[in-house]
Amino acid sequence: MENEIIEKIRNLSPDAFLDYYTEVIDKRLEAYSLRIIAEASCYHPFISKTTKRISEFVCRKCKRIASCSTLLTYLGYVNQVDEAILSVCEAIELFRHSILIHDDLVDMDNLRRGGKAFHKLFSDEYDTRFGKGTAIFYGNILYSEAITMLLKSGFDRSHLLKAVELLSTGYREVNESQVLDLFFESQEPTLKEWEAMASKRAASLFNVNMMMGAILGGVAEKELRLIKDIAKHIGFSFDIQDDIIGTFASAEQYGRPPGGDLILGKKALHIVYAYQLIQGTERGELKNLLTQNELSDQQMERIKEIVKCCGALEKAKQRSKEHAEIAIEALDKTTMNDYSKDFFSYLIYFISESLDWYR
Amino acid sequence: MENEIIEKIRNLSPDAFLDYYTEVIDKRLEAYSLRIIAEASCYHPFISKTTKRISEFVCRKCKRIASCSTLLTYLGYVNQVDEAILSVCEAIELFRHSILIHDDLVDMDNLRRGGKAFHKLFSDEYDTRFGKGTAIFYGNILYSEAITMLLKSGFDRSHLLKAVELLSTGYREVNESQVLDLFFESQEPTLKEWEAMASKRAASLFNVNMMMGAILGGVAEKELRLIKDIAKHIGFSFDIQDDIIGTFASAEQYGRPPGGDLILGKKALHIVYAYQLIQGTERGELKNLLTQNELSDQQMERIKEIVKCCGALEKAKQRSKEHAEIAIEALDKTTMNDYSKDFFSYLIYFISESLDWYR
Repeated sequence: MENEIIEKIRNLSPDAFLDYYTEVIDKRLEAYSLRIIAEASCYHPFISKTTKRISEFVCRKCKRIASCSTLLTYLGYVNQVDEAILSVCEAIELFRHSILIHDDLVDMDNLRRGGKAFHKLFSDEYDTRFGKGTAIFYGNILYSEAITMLLKSGFDRSHLLKAVELLSTGYREVNESQVLDLFFESQEPTLKEWEAMASKRAASLFNVNMMMGAILGGVAEKELRLIKDIAKHIGFSFDIQDDIIGTFASAEQYGRPPGGDLILGKKALHIVYAYQLIQGTERGELKNLLTQNELSDQQMERIKEIVKCCGALEKAKQRSKEHAEIAIEALDKTTMNDYSKDFFSYLIYFISESLDWYR
Repeated sequence: MENEIIEKIRNLSPDAFLDYYTEVIDKRLEAYSLRIIAEASCYHPFISKTTKRISEFVCRKCKRIASCSTLLTYLGYVNQVDEAILSVCEAIELFRHSILIHDDLVDMDNLRRGGKAFHKLFSDEYDTRFGKGTAIFYGNILYSEAITMLLKSGFDRSHLLKAVELLSTGYREVNESQVLDLFFESQEPTLKEWEAMASKRAASLFNVNMMMGAILGGVAEKELRLIKDIAKHIGFSFDIQDDIIGTFASAEQYGRPPGGDLILGKKALHIVYAYQLIQGTERGELKNLLTQNELSDQQMERIKEIVKCCGALEKAKQRSKEHAEIAIEALDKTTMNDYSKDFFSYLIYFISESLDWYR
């Protein structure tokens, strides 16, 4: 089996690998959905309905970068793709979506992956309280299902216990960073404060994704430290880029109206840098714009102009690229196989290069 | 150590045992709080503040019935109290409070254990969105901490994996019942529907509490089925009683204004029975009262009168007592030691008898 799979994927480019395993994981998630819908129908018809909705939400088309990172890390050490790790990939997707549901709810994002955010599905059909309550409970259900799925994956006990601890710690960290992210909306965090927050956001998520593959692949302690470091820097690079997209992408590129983060007063790195770089009336103007409850197109353009002209955008892009470079260097030091190294290099390159889209 | 502890508790009445171990668990939770506050201060001063608040919330005085049920089940088979099971008791309390935080948030309860509900702490100091967001994230953090605490308790791997699975399944079930409970607010559920919902509410919580002690105590499969059955019936008995208190207790007895559940349109068993037992204009009157957004004292009295006069209150009390009796019968069949049997009999008796307070 080992050789057969390695033979098959050897000829796949990183991009083709991502597409191929996105489809494999999608199909598994669809089969899982059918199982939980059948179970739910034994409980109550309404839970059958809500379970159909959560399944549709989890199965929406997207690149499965989170779980493919787990898969590629595992593959990088074990040189095989097996049933056990594919089950864990499903768990990673459930974990990721549990976080997205609560995130969208708190940040009042009404769209996700080309459809309504989960809380919006039931807010529209019933009422706001019902929509929000259901989103809280289903975020919880997905997280508990992620753990159950992990436990049933078939890995041995000692590895599973480490894997559950990784997931729990990651979940705590991401939730802590979300509290801080919420708090910063009404603050002007320093660079150090931003770094503290970001160290537990995408950095913690990538840490869960990659360390999961490494732990279950039985990787030694020294190598785990390298993986932890790579994940951290990919996370920082990704976070910075994601925030830049949120401000600078067009609605078409972003898939929903950009600027939502600015209206909430979120403190992206390019905003933190802008506050550092500008003084006097311009600083006052930016602060005034970032405390509005709505932003006209003109006001949005003015914010972008300020962030660009003071050099904050360039500085944030540069910072993202630095993290990408450090990640690449650390990647080279690992004993991962070349196929997985190429994939992660491609992923990092993709994140880093896409910054050039936003000027 | 074994004999020493057994000697000490042998002379404690169930009530004194509960008081004694409530204090032991309280002290452990306080020590845990100091640890997480110290850790949080390394992350960010604001997380240090929120961690102090969550610690104060978890450490608020209350009878630790949930974790003492775990302890007593374990003690009933292993004949000892050890460090490992006391760590698990802490985990059970964190788990319980994670559920309470989300529950209070969704049900808009502003008071909990003689203080503000967790979301209310930050809603009052900052704003509503911040309060609600923080409550979602800290509910999540407590749940992840419960799992981490469990993993670090020191029990062996195979038992720990079963324990984590128990906690995850219990968490999913409780969240599913909460979705259904929310849905029923706008419905008139049948008795069967109410039973389905209640089968995953307190029944699932008591199942986690007691099965945790039994699994970690290495109890055999046949005995586990008995424990599962006992927990289910204690849960039903407790749930029915808890809802009766919510309608019929005075504000002084209840610790907060009663009738909140009626205003939300919650479908307690005594309400389900009332809808079964009354017809015509009185049914219309009850339905009208239960869809109000506010209830005057007079309207509250009228609801209570309808529920009492048609026999629904008595029927619900009777049902609670039947579950208590079945639980006692099943308890007798177990091989638990007499000390633990006496404790659970006392607990069941306490739940069942306290129903006579509400006429």
